[in-house]
This record gives sequence, structure tokens and C-alpha cells, in this order.
Amino acid sequence: MEIYNFSAGPARLPKEVMKIAQAEFCNFQESGSGILELSHRGKFFSPVIERAEANIRELMGISDDYAVCFVQGGASMQFAMIPMNLLNGGTADFIDTGVWSNKAAKEAKLFGTANIAASSRESKYDHIPAASEWKLTPNASYMYITSNNTVAGSEYIPLPKAPAGVPLVADMSSDIMSRVVNVNDFGLIFAGAQKNLGPSGVALVIIRKDLLERTGENVPTMLKYSTYTENGSMFNTPPTFAIYMLALVTDYFKQQGGIAAIEKVNIAKAEKLYGYLDSTDFYKTPVAKENRSRMNVVFRTPSDELDAKFVKDALPHGLTDLKGHRLVGGCRASIYNAMPMAGIDALIEYMKEFERLNG
Amino acid sequence: MEIYNFSAGPARLPKEVMKIAQAEFCNFQESGSGILELSHRGKFFSPVIERAEANIRELMGISDDYAVCFVQGGASMQFAMIPMNLLNGGTADFIDTGVWSNKAAKEAKLFGTANIAASSRESKYDHIPAASEWKLTPNASYMYITSNNTVAGSEYIPLPKAPAGVPLVADMSSDIMSRVVNVNDFGLIFAGAQKNLGPSGVALVIIRKDLLERTGENVPTMLKYSTYTENGSMFNTPPTFAIYMLALVTDYFKQQGGIAAIEKVNIAKAEKLYGYLDSTDFYKTPVAKENRSRMNVVFRTPSDELDAKFVKDALPHGLTDLKGHRLVGGCRASIYNAMPMAGIDALIEYMKEFERLNG
Repeated sequence: MEIYNFSAGPARLPKEVMKIAQAEFCNFQESGSGILELSHRGKFFSPVIERAEANIRELMGISDDYAVCFVQGGASMQFAMIPMNLLNGGTADFIDTGVWSNKAAKEAKLFGTANIAASSRESKYDHIPAASEWKLTPNASYMYITSNNTVAGSEYIPLPKAPAGVPLVADMSSDIMSRVVNVNDFGLIFAGAQKNLGPSGVALVIIRKDLLERTGENVPTMLKYSTYTENGSMFNTPPTFAIYMLALVTDYFKQQGGIAAIEKVNIAKAEKLYGYLDSTDFYKTPVAKENRSRMNVVFRTPSDELDAKFVKDALPHGLTDLKGHRLVGGCRASIYNAMPMAGIDALIEYMKEFERLNG
Repeated sequence: MEIYNFSAGPARLPKEVMKIAQAEFCNFQESGSGILELSHRGKFFSPVIERAEANIRELMGISDDYAVCFVQGGASMQFAMIPMNLLNGGTADFIDTGVWSNKAAKEAKLFGTANIAASSRESKYDHIPAASEWKLTPNASYMYITSNNTVAGSEYIPLPKAPAGVPLVADMSSDIMSRVVNVNDFGLIFAGAQKNLGPSGVALVIIRKDLLERTGENVPTMLKYSTYTENGSMFNTPPTFAIYMLALVTDYFKQQGGIAAIEKVNIAKAEKLYGYLDSTDFYKTPVAKENRSRMNVVFRTPSDELDAKFVKDALPHGLTDLKGHRLVGGCRASIYNAMPMAGIDALIEYMKEFERLNG
């Protein structure tokens, strides 16, 4: 039976990629060693990290005005690195759309002022506040958004812009490369890899080069973006295996026709699943229709007990990890790039059967 | 032909471990997913990280007075985290025995005073300064050493102690679990995994619990040790695949009879290789005899040209990565736990032949 793993991350990776990585795991390109046993400065790994960066640049259409780098510590480390490098006692505007933007604002307060310019916290993050309601700071050091909210199940569609002259900083951990993005609208984009791009253990950071000059002298070496941009992300040993997987996954994205083609499939997957949710009263999604995430579909059955039963009874159907985030409960289907339409179909079939048996 | 990879890190891992990881790469314990596709909070990964910690505690004899955690960013991130958490404007004493202790002292200066209590820099780090020469600060916040110097090829044998009441902090990146250590002599031990323990992308940190109280409120969440110790290293998504490999490698160490048994083999490997080096005038090692590293054997042929030829001509013999660190040149054979005696024998055979042809 095909298993469909709906984990919010670490998450399913393309089967084709997993098979390549398995086949060459112990002997990469006839080196006699696995890629994770090889020096990061040797002739085998250098082309891998270069290919990962080149693939990302090509897929996202990134110009030479931006540096692309690979950093450890996940998105949560970026919550600190961003204000350490870009804030310097200034004010940053945060659009608070969920637990992750909230955590990012908390870290920024250590290095300056974090102004919550808008928040949907009072309505349990069931929508993204309209841009007309944002109370922005004139000449803020940057404006910060979480483009997709993994826990709440909401997403900016389309993405917003920051006021002229204010760098827009975006946590795209859970929708990076799931849709076409105009990188030129952003000052900094970052994403933990473990949802759409690869395994956990590496975060992608795309930074407009002029922003590198903001970093003060008193920032530790490993927390300065310039340390990564000036050393090809190899000031010290990078997480080589995670970067290798990222290279393979982005190879695969190119074979799929690039991000525009992938976005089309993602829209079709989300429309089918939300279409089914809207067709029945048994399941409900709390998220405002115009802000529904294409990546994390959050829903509930009529009761907490049935939510738990839904998650458990799904296992014999080969459908795993459908539990909502521990902070909010309910159910959640994470349907990143690597989830095929067949997984959506299998989920909807099961949802229909579950409603028939428990409705 | 068997390939022996003498890389200083990322480095060779036990063949048995690599085979297990390859076999279950796409389907971990009949989950239908690879371990790197599974949620870090799910039923499959939780026992893996628990086993990794339990193995480390058992192998190193770590008491409940110490916390064991897994941190991203490599040893270089520890160079900053240690003073951020433990220094608070105080003075730390550094024994400068190579490039890595030097880099660690540089980061500490951002958070207090880094006193170079002793240094062998002037003689190109060819020895470890004798304890009798150390100019220690009374009641220092901590004393810092690099137990094995990967670039210079020196190692503290035996390990030193700090004055009573002063926590000893040790970078054991390149000799962790290669020899028996009394953890109770240390305040904090850390090690990037990519030499003896697993792939790059995770650092092991062992910290005496009373030291956790030193951290100030203004340290970012991901840079506080307490964030890791209070959340089982899962405040955010940890590098799951690297931790999984660490669990497999430490399983293997237990099967080998533990660290005392592994140390015996490492001593025999080092004695054989240095014994050969001492038996010929063609090769020379610059390191003082009593400080020779059992992990990184640094040597030179009579000229830079022959050094380069030595490294290159080794490849058809299946002996790779014998080039010295880019900062010092020459040749280097890194012979961590996973390098079998057969690798030493093959290297010595080649060294004899190279001398015969070029001597």
C-alpha cells in the first residue's frame, strides 16, 4: 500500500529523489565514500553546493543583487539573526499572523523595537489582517511577514509589498518554491528546508546584498550573514548531506518544469481538497476563505473525540500524520510540493468514508 | 579496491553503519517513509533521539549532573555560544594550541575578556604548552582548551584539569569518543559530529547543569543552552538525519566494546603510523613527540612539490584526502574511530613505495 505522509515537516520528499540518494548513499560518484563522508572542500562536494545554489537562483529567478546562502539552526535561528544583522536598535514592523511571526517578534525585541503593525491573534489567527489595517512605522528598519502559517493554515495570496524603501523580510519556510515569487520585492527571504526543499538541518537565506552592510562589528562570526556570503556558506563545515538533498530536490523541481508548473499543481491540489471541505458540513476549516493555505489544510470534525479518531483511523488507509499542531489541536493535512494529487484523492476518499461511518 | 578516505572531516563512517542507513533510507521501520521525511515529534523519531542521548551517556559515563544536547552550527557556533552563556563580562583563560582555540578566543572577546594563558603560536603550534607555563587568571569564568588540534596534529595526552572551582571547557570535535574521558573534570564539552560521530550538521554539547544558570536574559532563544536542555533539543526542528546517524554510530561503538576498547585500537593505529614515521628520515612530523595526535597525523616529505605528488600519487592506491589543512600545507592522515587498522597498513605500504620511488 502506498503511504501518504501528511507531516507538516520534516515532510515527504519526492520518491525519485529518495531513490537516487539511497542508490549512491555509500558510494557517491565512484568515490568509494558516501557524500556525507566526503570533505566539504573536496572535489566531490564543491559541485554539489554550487549546483544547489545555481538551481535555487534559476528556479526563483534570483538576480546578482542577492546572495544565496545556507545556514544552520532552522528558521528559529533566523528569528535572531535577522534583528542581530538588520535592526541595530531601530524599529521593525511585524504582521502577526501566527505563532511563528510572534516568536520572530520576541527575538527582535532583544535588538530594537518590534512593532506589531497588525495581528489576528484575538481571532485565533483565523485570517491575515488586510493591508489597509496595518499600522506601519514610517521608515522602519524592515517589515516582517510569515508568508504561510503552518499552524494556523493561512497564507498570503498574493504576497504583499512593503512601503518603498523598507526591506520586506519573509519567513517562507512552509511555502518556499511552492509558488512563483518576485524576489525583487524582498530584502530577505528565509526558509527552513524541511517542508518543501529537503531534510531538516539547513535553512536557505536569500539576502539583498546592500543589507549586508548593516551588520555591526559586535555580532559573532557565525551569526553574521556576511560570514556566509563571503565564504560560499563554507566558513566552517556546512551540513553537507542536507545541502546535497537540497541539490537533488531542486534538480527534480527543474525536471518538473520549474516553479510555475509546480504552483499549478499545488493550486489544483488545494482547490480539490478545499472544494471537498466546502461540500460537506461534517468538516470545517476555521480559516478565512481568501487566506487559506495551499500548503497546510487545517480542519476539524464535529468534536475533539472525532478529530482524534479521524487521525487514528486514517493509519490503516496509509494516511499518516494528520494531527493538527499541538498548540491548536484538530486535524491538518500538509500537502507540500512532494505530495502528489493521488495523495489528495486518497485523503478525500477516506474523509468521505469517515463521515459516512461517524457522521 | 577498498578506498581509504583520510579526510579530516566530514570523514569516513563505519561501513556497517552506512549499510544500515542505506538499507532503511526510504522506509524506516516499515513506516513507508525515510527517517528524514518523518516528523521530529512523531513516534518514529522520538526513540531515535532518546537512543542517541542514552548511548552517549552510557559510552562516556555521563552523570545526571550533566545535560546532553544537540545543537546546530558546528563547533564554530559553540565558539560564540559558550561566552554568550558563560562569560557575562568576566575573564576566560584560553590555552592557545592552534587555529581553533584562536578562533574561539576571538568570539569570547565580544562578551568579556579572553586571556591567552599560554600559546604555542610562535613555534607554529608544534607542541602544547606545559601546564607549568600557563598564566591562569584567579577565579576565571572558565578555562578553555582544544583537546585535539586537527590542523596542527597535536593532542593533550593526558587531558589537563582546571584549577578547583574553574569550569574546564573543551572543544573535543576531533577526538570525542576516541578515548576515555572523565566528564566530571569538565564544565562543558562540545564536538562537531563530523569526525568521529556522524555527518556534519550537528554538534554534541555536554554541559554541567549548574552552569545553565549563568545565562543572561538578553541571549536569543536559539543561543541559550537552556533552550536545548529544557526541550530535549527539540525547541525547534532538530537536524533529524544527523541525529539518526549519531544514534547508529554510537550503537556501533557499543557493539565494539565501548570507548575503552576503541581507545586501545586508536592507540595501536597511531603507534604503528608514528612508528613508521620515526623509522625513516624521508617523512617528518613537526609535532613534539609527547603531544602527537592519535587522530590527525601531520607529516611532510622533503619538499612542497613531493608533498603534492604524495597526495596525488596516493589516489590510484585508493588512499584519498591526504592533503594537509589549507592553512599549513604538507600531508595529513586523519585516522578517526572508523579508520580500520587495514587503512593504516595500506597507507604505510604506500609511504614505503613512495619513498623508494622518490627518496
